[in-house]
Parts: sequence; structure tokens; C-alpha cells
Amino acid sequence: MARVKKKIRQEQLIEKVKNKPFLTDEELAKQLDVSVQTIRLDRLELGIPELRGRIRKMAENAQNKVKAIQSNEVVGELIDLELGHSGISLLKITEDMVFGKTQIAKGHFMFSQADSLAMAIVDAPMAVTGVANVKYKVPVHVGEKLIAKAEIVKVRGNKYFIWVKTHNETQEVFRAKFIVVSWGEK
Amino acid sequence: MARVKKKIRQEQLIEKVKNKPFLTDEELAKQLDVSVQTIRLDRLELGIPELRGRIRKMAENAQNKVKAIQSNEVVGELIDLELGHSGISLLKITEDMVFGKTQIAKGHFMFSQADSLAMAIVDAPMAVTGVANVKYKVPVHVGEKLIAKAEIVKVRGNKYFIWVKTHNETQEVFRAKFIVVSWGEK
Repeated sequence: MARVKKKIRQEQLIEKVKNKPFLTDEELAKQLDVSVQTIRLDRLELGIPELRGRIRKMAENAQNKVKAIQSNEVVGELIDLELGHSGISLLKITEDMVFGKTQIAKGHFMFSQADSLAMAIVDAPMAVTGVANVKYKVPVHVGEKLIAKAEIVKVRGNKYFIWVKTHNETQEVFRAKFIVVSWGEK
Repeated sequence: MARVKKKIRQEQLIEKVKNKPFLTDEELAKQLDVSVQTIRLDRLELGIPELRGRIRKMAENAQNKVKAIQSNEVVGELIDLELGHSGISLLKITEDMVFGKTQIAKGHFMFSQADSLAMAIVDAPMAVTGVANVKYKVPVHVGEKLIAKAEIVKVRGNKYFIWVKTHNETQEVFRAKFIVVSWGEK
């Protein structure tokens, strides 16, 4: 019976890590209602790397896939990319990114993260931003880790309509719609 | 008669420099249909500084007036500011500002120039960007000098509706509408 329980739990673990690779061992333990120690042993047994390793591997894969711009031109760290479809990047807000008077992050950084991610997910040799409509929902401060998720919602000829939503640890702080225009032979 | 002509010309010169302080001596000479030498002598006589001096003086004045952000947080060079009304900044596009593949300026820079200028013209102790709708009209390349002009078109409570239009030497390359939100005692 214990063996059956373990098998089911490990299958659930594999499924969870596949769907949400950013879950920490603590979060996985909570969700599967076991100890963190159990999660670590399961990971070892199953050959699932720890969180940092999973992110590093995803990031390498993602960066190798970027076409329309150079992968080092993505603002923040590109951690997932499904070319022609979607992508995820991470930007840590540091002290040099905030306005002196308000200690609120300069809007340019959230814009740059979103804009460069939108370009990175386009499956074309070159691209340029045509239009952007952006909304700052919540002020962002030093230390926050911003996860931006971009998705191509429509393609018309060489025009890509892309939505980007950016969250900190607790809520959505920024969202943007871009029209990115591509050119060059695929 | 020559003296009358000179007086009229010098009055025209004063008027022109007042309205368009960025005109070069060459442009002034053309517009007043005299030689560049004549313009220089007129300027000397009238105590009008040369173009660079005029810009430097305007820039100093402008920078001293910024309230909602620190003046060094304006992206590019702030060269004119009518607080609570309008402002002008200059951004030179350098090699580190373009995408490697296309040699086209990264959209973030035009955005940053416009966004920080929009904040700089707000007459309030603090401000933050709420919404931005931007349009990239023409690709921008290394060496171009971008003049952004921002204007407050409407104020509703603590919300400022600001338009920014950015030109290179020949045409409009970018335009943006911002809603900037202010707070703090005036």
C-alpha cells in the first residue's frame, strides 16, 4: 500500500514539475501533503533536478531558440520559450532601477522586459515593435522578482499581436499589448 | 535706410531666436536673407549667445525646474521645460542602443525618453506612470538625434494626460500618450 501511495505521489510530482517548473520543494511538499524531505528523496529517485537547476536548464534551452533578436538582448532572464507561441522571463528589481524620490521602479524596465520578450517569441529572422499599449497596475519596489509571460494571440501576415502579463510574487503589476512586425525569410 | 533695415532685421532675429532657439546661424541667415557673418555680428551686438550656449542655458533652466522626478532621471538631455505644461528633450542614438541584427534602435529608448519627459513636466512632488499607448512610426538608426516634445493636454484630479511626439531631423518617428498620476502636496 505504501508502495502504491509512493508511486501515485511520484507521478503527481512529475506532473506538477512539468506544468509548473518554478515550484519550490516547499511548495511541492505542501501541495502533495508530504514533508520537504520526501520531495527531495523523490526528486533524487526520479532524477528531477532542484529548482535552480530546472530553471538553468530551461533558460539555456530558451536562449538557444530566440531568432528575431539576440538572446542577450532580452531584458531580464529568459527562462522559457516556445517559439512562435509564448515565453517567460524573470527580472529582479535592483536599487538602480527605481526613482530616487519615490523608490518606485521606473516604468521603462517593465516596458523593456515585456517588449524584448514579445520580440523574442516571434518566429522570424528579424522583428521591430510597431505599437504598444501598456498599463502599470501596482507600483513595483526594490527586491521584487517580476515574471513576465508573453503570448502571441493573433497573427495577420507579418504582424504579431502579443500580450504580456507581468506578476510579482503576489499579483499582476503590469500588462501590455504589442504589435510586433517581422520580416525576412523564415 | 541701411540703419533702418538693420534695426528691422535685428528685431526679426530676436523674435526668431525667441520662438525657435534651436535655429543655427546658417538657418537664421537663410531665413533673414543675409550672410552668416551678418548674423554673427548681429548676435554679438545684441548679446545673443551662439546656438550651443543658448541650448546649454535653456537646459540648465529646465533641469532646475523638474519636480516629480530627479532631473538626472530624464532619459536624454532635457533642454526646455515649462512646468505643468510642456517640455523638450534630446536623445542621441548611439551604437549600444540598437539591436544587433537589424541595427534599429531598441524601442525601449524612445519609450524611456518619452516616459521620463512626461513625468518631468508634471508640477507635483511625485508621479508615477499609469498608462502608455505608443506607436513606432519609422525605424531609428545610429547617429539620429531625437527631439521629443511633451505636452499636458488634460488634467483630471491627479491624473495628467500627456502627449509626446518624437522627431528625428526629418520626420516624426514615434508618438505616445501617457496617463501620469501624481501625489504629494504641491
